[in-house]
Amino acid sequence: MPYNLNNSMKAYVYVSLKKSVLDPQGKTIHGALAKMGFHGVADVRQGKYFEIDLTGMARAEAEAEVQRLAREVLTNTVIEEYRYTLEE
Amino acid sequence: MPYNLNNSMKAYVYVSLKKSVLDPQGKTIHGALAKMGFHGVADVRQGKYFEIDLTGMARAEAEAEVQRLAREVLTNTVIEEYRYTLEE
Repeated sequence: MPYNLNNSMKAYVYVSLKKSVLDPQGKTIHGALAKMGFHGVADVRQGKYFEIDLTGMARAEAEAEVQRLAREVLTNTVIEEYRYTLEE
Repeated sequence: MPYNLNNSMKAYVYVSLKKSVLDPQGKTIHGALAKMGFHGVADVRQGKYFEIDLTGMARAEAEAEVQRLAREVLTNTVIEEYRYTLEE
């Protein structure tokens, strides 16, 4: 049997605003940090991330599933982009 | 000169709820995914992440700075924990 389908996998999906999109939340944090004396900080951008436990799937299937849910559910592809990692 | 202080570094800080803390937002996403037909998903937890550009610091100094701002500003240490990576 090539795969152990009882294996659980963990997917980490990182969603961030596209570089071309202004990030007011990041700018606010950057401003706050500057006021608090963190002077080495040149820029801050904030994103979301998701830890997703997957079960009963082979790796290729899990990969396709994560890409689909990242694209269709977790990311607003008009203004956001995602990247992910998959760990067994 | 051991360090190029004009080098800019990029810190990635990941903030998530402690394992012992209930994550209603993750549960909601999990429920939505199940209804949408993503049946291999066993659990979802959501967190935040921050991309921070740092300038004019040596690596050790940058590391200390990132730890300090993650602990003091970005993380509510009562219910959250953080991890970070630093890239040159």
